[in-house]
Amino acid sequence: MANSPSGESMTSRIVRVISAFDETHQAMPIAVLARRAGLPLSTAHRIVNELMGHGFLQREADGSVRLGLRLWELANRSSAALGLKQIAMPFMEDIQAVVRQHTQLSVLRQDEVLFIERLSSHGSVLNHAKVAGRLPVHVSSSGMVMMAHSPRHVQEEYLAQQNPDASEEKRLRSSWAKMRLEGSARLPGAVVPDTTGIAVPVFGAGGTAVAAIGVVVPTGSEHISSTIPALMTAARGISRGLGVRAEAAGPHYQR
Amino acid sequence: MANSPSGESMTSRIVRVISAFDETHQAMPIAVLARRAGLPLSTAHRIVNELMGHGFLQREADGSVRLGLRLWELANRSSAALGLKQIAMPFMEDIQAVVRQHTQLSVLRQDEVLFIERLSSHGSVLNHAKVAGRLPVHVSSSGMVMMAHSPRHVQEEYLAQQNPDASEEKRLRSSWAKMRLEGSARLPGAVVPDTTGIAVPVFGAGGTAVAAIGVVVPTGSEHISSTIPALMTAARGISRGLGVRAEAAGPHYQR
Repeated sequence: MANSPSGESMTSRIVRVISAFDETHQAMPIAVLARRAGLPLSTAHRIVNELMGHGFLQREADGSVRLGLRLWELANRSSAALGLKQIAMPFMEDIQAVVRQHTQLSVLRQDEVLFIERLSSHGSVLNHAKVAGRLPVHVSSSGMVMMAHSPRHVQEEYLAQQNPDASEEKRLRSSWAKMRLEGSARLPGAVVPDTTGIAVPVFGAGGTAVAAIGVVVPTGSEHISSTIPALMTAARGISRGLGVRAEAAGPHYQR
Repeated sequence: MANSPSGESMTSRIVRVISAFDETHQAMPIAVLARRAGLPLSTAHRIVNELMGHGFLQREADGSVRLGLRLWELANRSSAALGLKQIAMPFMEDIQAVVRQHTQLSVLRQDEVLFIERLSSHGSVLNHAKVAGRLPVHVSSSGMVMMAHSPRHVQEEYLAQQNPDASEEKRLRSSWAKMRLEGSARLPGAVVPDTTGIAVPVFGAGGTAVAAIGVVVPTGSEHISSTIPALMTAARGISRGLGVRAEAAGPHYQR
């Protein structure tokens, strides 16, 4: 990565320092951080020292740095994820009580699914969706059901970006059409073999999906006829919590 | 609040903007944000616009701004809270399965308890400890048990800062001595009437508490004889996960 172009604002340098951390780079020496942020080492040192003073970064025993507890506290106390999460949590607990498998809440970010919250159940099956983790849309029932219930231009942008071959594009379009008709998505074994993801959209005021709620269950014991109505009931409750009128909170369950 | 003193770094201004948000100020107009951050309106506008461009802030429908989903994602994917949380989660699920009440993980920050994670159980009692929320040390069994197992100088700093009267100081010191002896804390009804908090320390490599794990249960059905050993077992498992040798992972349960 190149050094920061002259004239670049300090704000964007700080953003680049904070954004250099991810799941596989949770802590790193300042030299690595400088390289990942595209900053001269001296600039990185200065920003890191200041951010450490405010608890936004912190130093590990081995001298590497990581995002600080203070930043975590701020983000978890007042970010945009909180409203949705707080509204959804009681409904997720209801689902959890009925289905007794991983229950998760997610939103669409560009071409990926970002998982906002997850309740896991003792003895529930393996599930790769972590909180604040992402999965590609096409491998996730939550991603597919949100895309299916997104405005046409969002779907077209997704297809333009992914550039699937003709048969895959046809498959995606027909999956979305089916999911719109049924109001739910079911993806067998896309991530972990022998599991099935089942998800339904949470509708916002505009009548398009603003989130999805879903479960991951062992393939063969999906209990579709009870799981999907339970998810839809929860999704409608969440929509209502978001201020959406009942008649706009999505289609009824297609038997 | 005064305008930022000239010569103050851009980093600290940005930190002040992000730090201006809290549980009771999750979204606010830029003018309010500028005032809370102690910045001139024009400076606040510039920083807000840049941070919005990076998804660190986002605008609500009513024009107010709040912390963005991107910041939440970064903090939850790689902050210092994550290591502890990931190690603790399976043990918390074990506790949850046995006790079937709110189970929570916390750390000590200055004179307050910061809650890192919480599992709630359907039908469990009311509990004021929210994720990323704080409580004063003296009203929380988790706070008291961590303070009891903190180095002497931490306790003295706490007392100097709180400045309790002589009888309250005596009460705190004798509570800590008892909690050290028993290896656990039990606080009846400190926050919500008819509930009891029970917590044990999670020991770090230094032999002092680095976290606490606790439950909140209805007063009168605490099942102390089974709850405390379950919590201690979980705490030892978390210590081991943090790399602490078994013999340093804390005292055995005092019958």
